[in-house]
Parts: sequence; structure tokens; C-alpha cells
Amino acid sequence: MKKTPFITLEKAREIAEKIPTPYHVYDEAGIRANARALKAAFAWNQGFREYFAVKATPNPHILQVLKEEGCGCDCSSYTELLLAEAVGVTGHDVMFSSNVTPELDMKKAYDMGAYINLDDATHVDFLEKLVDQMPETVCLRYNPGGSFTISNTIMDMPRDAKYGMTEDQMAGAIARLQKLGVKHFGIHAFLASNTTTNEYYPELASNLFRLAVRLRNATGAHISFVNLSGGIGVDYRPEQPCCNIAIIGEGVRQRYEQIMVPNGMGDVAIFTELGRFMLAPYGHLIATVLHQKHIYREYVGLDACAADLMRPAMYGAYHHITVLGKEDAILDHVYDVTGGLCENNDKFAIERSLPEVQIGDIVAIHDTGAHGHSMGYNYNGKLRSAEVLLKEDGSFQLIRRAETPADYFATLDCTPFMPKC
Amino acid sequence: MKKTPFITLEKAREIAEKIPTPYHVYDEAGIRANARALKAAFAWNQGFREYFAVKATPNPHILQVLKEEGCGCDCSSYTELLLAEAVGVTGHDVMFSSNVTPELDMKKAYDMGAYINLDDATHVDFLEKLVDQMPETVCLRYNPGGSFTISNTIMDMPRDAKYGMTEDQMAGAIARLQKLGVKHFGIHAFLASNTTTNEYYPELASNLFRLAVRLRNATGAHISFVNLSGGIGVDYRPEQPCCNIAIIGEGVRQRYEQIMVPNGMGDVAIFTELGRFMLAPYGHLIATVLHQKHIYREYVGLDACAADLMRPAMYGAYHHITVLGKEDAILDHVYDVTGGLCENNDKFAIERSLPEVQIGDIVAIHDTGAHGHSMGYNYNGKLRSAEVLLKEDGSFQLIRRAETPADYFATLDCTPFMPKC
Repeated sequence: MKKTPFITLEKAREIAEKIPTPYHVYDEAGIRANARALKAAFAWNQGFREYFAVKATPNPHILQVLKEEGCGCDCSSYTELLLAEAVGVTGHDVMFSSNVTPELDMKKAYDMGAYINLDDATHVDFLEKLVDQMPETVCLRYNPGGSFTISNTIMDMPRDAKYGMTEDQMAGAIARLQKLGVKHFGIHAFLASNTTTNEYYPELASNLFRLAVRLRNATGAHISFVNLSGGIGVDYRPEQPCCNIAIIGEGVRQRYEQIMVPNGMGDVAIFTELGRFMLAPYGHLIATVLHQKHIYREYVGLDACAADLMRPAMYGAYHHITVLGKEDAILDHVYDVTGGLCENNDKFAIERSLPEVQIGDIVAIHDTGAHGHSMGYNYNGKLRSAEVLLKEDGSFQLIRRAETPADYFATLDCTPFMPKC
Repeated sequence: MKKTPFITLEKAREIAEKIPTPYHVYDEAGIRANARALKAAFAWNQGFREYFAVKATPNPHILQVLKEEGCGCDCSSYTELLLAEAVGVTGHDVMFSSNVTPELDMKKAYDMGAYINLDDATHVDFLEKLVDQMPETVCLRYNPGGSFTISNTIMDMPRDAKYGMTEDQMAGAIARLQKLGVKHFGIHAFLASNTTTNEYYPELASNLFRLAVRLRNATGAHISFVNLSGGIGVDYRPEQPCCNIAIIGEGVRQRYEQIMVPNGMGDVAIFTELGRFMLAPYGHLIATVLHQKHIYREYVGLDACAADLMRPAMYGAYHHITVLGKEDAILDHVYDVTGGLCENNDKFAIERSLPEVQIGDIVAIHDTGAHGHSMGYNYNGKLRSAEVLLKEDGSFQLIRRAETPADYFATLDCTPFMPKC
């Protein structure tokens, strides 16, 4: 399917007059429509709730938009909890899913009244020592080990993953938590990342529903929710198949009817912790062509670099690129599209077919709404870009300013060598 | 060879009382001794100069130590230039090697009087338009294309690299620069990263010396220096062979005598831009064991994570780990050593043999002195660690404080949702 940017050259230029490129821009209308589609797909489940994976796009304005659409926050660290709190998301509107959890983080989650998702059986004691009274509800993270396959395709290898606990450990943890006064339990697992098959969530749900029944039978515990976590992906490539959230929701419903309802567990809520699915397609990294060079290949050099979007450098990930204003031009040139980091992996695209590019052209790099700005770094002393919200009415708002040299040097304030800037 | 940390458990604890783990610690004595060994290896070349690759360890205290050892700074961005300036390194003590160069960066390098290393032939016009008068000396970056082999081993593929220009482009650029009044020229190339053979630098030098002779013959230009750039690596693994800088220096000398001297170019200075070689072994990431878990493998969870050291997550890179105080214990346990990022690639070691580890143990992760702190990011809202200099007299100094939540949220100061912290 052709990938069409949600922003025009004119709008990108209008923004750039106030907020110079590079900047990430997010499409409020797209975010809201997608969140509503998710909600509709799971409307059959009374307690359904999406807890947005804050790590994907830790910007409070984005959290606020999602809050207005009824989403909570999935936080994994102290600062992510502070972000949720800043937009008034607290209590059971927060899911805290962490690993190697520091005391500070765990205590903050507890104090906020968040659902706490324990990554390991040893975290029962860890939590108990930190708090006066255990929460009424505790979630446990499951790791089934082995490989996770769908229709003979290996999706991922849970046995190599650091997360979660075994079924025996879960049963033991529940028994101990019951003694400590915990009344309700959640079950959580994350078994594959960025899947584009409609089968992942139903298959995962099937596993977790059966586990929930077994654990209820073994311990008598009341399971109040099953958290399907993240893993629903997006079509980064134009030719890639795309998930259909309505089909996914229906697939999960069927497993729920087959497994949960007959076992008297028709009151269990379904939670999700989607990040990529919620945001990736609704962000573009907008950049300007600074240079072109002609050596053993043709190069287009942007004012953005891996500091703004690391996925191509880190994973060799594909991100589609549209030259704004040339949406319908023939793709009769082949370029490597690079940033200016002193790393040869700082290439947004390798041997990519594009229309003829000129210096000064503005490009939209697609699907940067999740794990884009949030994965940025400061290698080579590069500064991370601004974030802009393109609102439903067509106006725009700066929702994070670009870093300045002063930000970059901030942690040198204890030295006599503070650079002048 | 056994890898021995330069810090004891006692010293690590003494530091941790004032600067909580995780922190990067640098060994001043080791840095100085190594810098002197480099200088000695190239003492035969009158104009020899090491320009430390600032991107490896962009801390002004480190730059100051190296400045005292006679090193200049190799900068690739505006902020790196500001850092050099902050420790009084300016003029020809600075080499500016960049690509996709923004105007701001190029102008700053020019204003500081730095040697400017042009990445592309088109940058001649780019520079000329920016400045009133061209510098007396300009450096040009070379890309030979093809593959770069030593003894039939492919070291890297320059034809796939975004850097530099072809020989024809260099000759053309020199001719044009001569017309613009440039009097002296440098030649630069970077053809392989983290090599551990003593042959890399001599082989590269041989290529560049021959190129220098050809370009001098073709254009009549005065070549004043050959910049061998970086690429000398370190032995991250204990069993890995290690470079010998004296042998490398002697190898380059032999090529110089064979190629440069007979061609009347015995006045040409040799420059280097080493980063990893200068710093990597003289840094440790010191971290405390927070958790242990026992699922399908044994896990040790640290208070450090990929935010402090990304190389294992990004490249699958090996970093040796010593449990401090257990340097001589038998390695009869096997652990995955992880950080707490919500990414399964946040593992400092996979199935690593270590002595039995307890919660509270302090570990030293080796060879983090280069591309360690500088490649850190804030994914998952994780905060980057402090940096500490272990001085020659055994005392220590905080040379960069740890990030705080306030630093992490700084670029949200334009929003109404500033988190409280």
C-alpha cells in the first residue's frame, strides 16, 4: 500500500518557520481515530483498558490526548511515573511493568496506587519489605520459556528473555501474596515484538487464558485481569501486511468465549499495553536536505541524524521516506539518505528509490511516532529534536523544544570547564 | 590475557559513598601512560600529533588530561567544538572532521581556526560561501571505494561508506582550493574501525602516502600532513590479541621512509585521531547488583543499563565483567547480566561465566572509557550515570554528575505539563 504522509509540504514549511527542522510531528486526529478503533475492537470486554506504553512516546501532551481517549499509562521507570502523574494519570490508571526494579521506582508506583506488575517471584519479598501494606491487586509477569510459535513460525524465544517467571513460580508467588493479604491478581506476558499477523494477540490470549484458569484452579485466587501487553506492530514498509485491529479484537473475543466464560471467568478484564500500534504511524520526522554528494553512491544528507531516530542505525530498520511536494513524482533516483553522525550506520535509508532530490527539499520519514524521539541519544554531541503536535483543527503546537548546547552540557555544572553557550 | 580492573572493591565503595553507582570511572594514570606510549611510537615524525576523537569521551576533564599530554581535539560537531574551547584547545590544536556539516558547525570550526577536514568536494563551495577568506590549510577526506583488505582479509567496505571523496574529486578540489588561496593541504581517511592487527595503520599509511605523492605530483600542492584518523582498536575480550603501538609506529615509519622521503616529502606530519585506543581500557562502568532471578537461565540485574553503555545492546559487543572482591574466585556460575530497560537486548553479558554473585556485589564492566557514556540514551526514561576521574594520587573527582529527572524533563519547559521533581 502506498504510504502517504499526513502532512503537506506547505504545513511542514509553516511549522519550520517557527520550529526549525528537524522535528518530530504527531497527528492528533490519527492518534484519536486509532485509539477509538482499538476501543471498539475490544468493546465486548467490559473492563477493557489500553495502558499506553509510555516508553514509546514519553511526551505528556501525547499522554493527555490518549487519556482523553480513555487510555491509561504503562510505565516502566520512575521518570515515566512522574510523566503520567504530570497529566493526572494515577491510581489504577497506571500499570507499572518493570524489571531489575530499583526501590525508588517501586515505591513511587506503590505510592501512586498503580497496578504493580511483578517481573519475578523474588519481587514479592522485595515489595513487601518496601511497603506497610500490600496492594489489594498485584499483577504477575509470565514467561513460558521455550519458543513461541504461531502456525509453525517462530515468533520469538521466551526462554532467552529476561522477563517474567515460570508457571510454578507464579503459583508460588500467588500463594505467598494471598497470605500477605492480596485479594486480586493480574497476569501479564509479552512474547513477541512488532508482529504484523492478526494471530499474535489471539494466540497469546489463548495461552494466558488457559494459564489464568490453571492458576485460579491451583490457588483459588481471583484473577481480575489479563494483560496482553504490547506486540502488535505496524507496517513500516509499504508492501508489508498491516494488522486489522477489529479482526484481532474478535480473535481475542473468540478465545475468551471458549476458555474464560465456560470456566466462570467471564468477569476478567482485558488490558493492553500498546505503544508502537498506538503511535508509530502518527509521527513523522521532518528534516531538510543539507547536502548531496556523489561518490560510489549518491548521497542525500539531512539535518536529522540517528540522534533523532535510532532504529535504522540500531536495528537496520526500514522507515519509509517521502520527499514532500514530490509525493507523485517518479522514483527514478537511488540514494543513501544519511545523517551527519560520525558513524556509517547513521543512514535513514540505503539504496532507496526516491524522486530526484535537491538541497533544501523537506522530507518526511514515516512511522517515527513510537520509539523515535524516545530512543534518541547525544552521540557526537548531537542534540535531540523538537516535537510538534499537529492538531485536529490543522493548527500546531510545540510539545517539546529542541535540545540546546546548554542542555547537553547541563551535567557538567560540577566542573570548572563549563562550555560557554 | 587476564583482564584486571584498575580499581579495587574498597576504592569503588569509597567512591560509591559519595557518588552512588552506577558511575563510569576513568584511570588518569593509565590514560597518561598510554598517551605517552603513542607519542613515543611516533616520535620519529617531527610534526606528529594525536587529535583525540572527542566523540569517544566528550568530557572536558578527559580532554584536559590529554591536552597536558600534548594531544589536540578531533571534533565533529558544534558542541564538541565548544567542549574543546572550554579547555582552551583552539586553532590548529583542533581538527574538525564532520559530514553532512551544518553551517553553524563549519563556521564555528573556522572561527576557532581549526584544521577543517572537508568530507566532500561540494564542501569547497560550501566553505567558501560561509567565510571571507579561505584558511591557509585545508584537509580533504579520502574514500578509495572498493574493499579494504589486509593480507586477503576484508577489513571494511569503503565503497559502502558515506565518507570522503574519490581521488579525482580530491585533485579537483585541491586545484579549486589553490585558486581560492589555500596554500597547504592535509589528507585524511578512515577505512576500518576497532582493528586489533598491527598492520592496519601501516597499510592505511602506505595507501595515503602514495596518494599524497600522486596528488602532489598532479597538482603541485604542498601536502603538510597525513591524518591516519582512528581505527586502532582494543582487546575487549581477554583472549583477543592486543595492538602494540610501538610496532604500529615503527610500521608506519618504514612506509614513510619508503614512500615519502624518496619523494621529497619528508617534512609531512603524521596526525592521528584515536578515541577508542586512547580511552576505552581506562574506563570501567561500576554497578551494583540489585536483583537475581532464576528462570530458564540465571540472571543478575544491575543498577546500570544500556542507558549507561549501549554497545552490548547495539552491536552485541563483548565487555568483560569482574565482580570486585572476587577477582580470583573460580568462574563456576553462568549468568545473563542485565540492566533494567524494557528491552531484551539490555544485557551486558549473555551466558557469562562468573563467580557466584550476591545481591549487593559491585561489578566493574571493562573497557567503557570510549563510546561508553557518550553513547548513552534516555530510553525508558532512564537517566545517564555520573563520570569520575580516579587520579594518579589515588584520590577521585566527580567530572560529570548523574542526570536527574529535572534534566530529563528540561525540554518540556515549554509545556504546561512539567512533571514535579
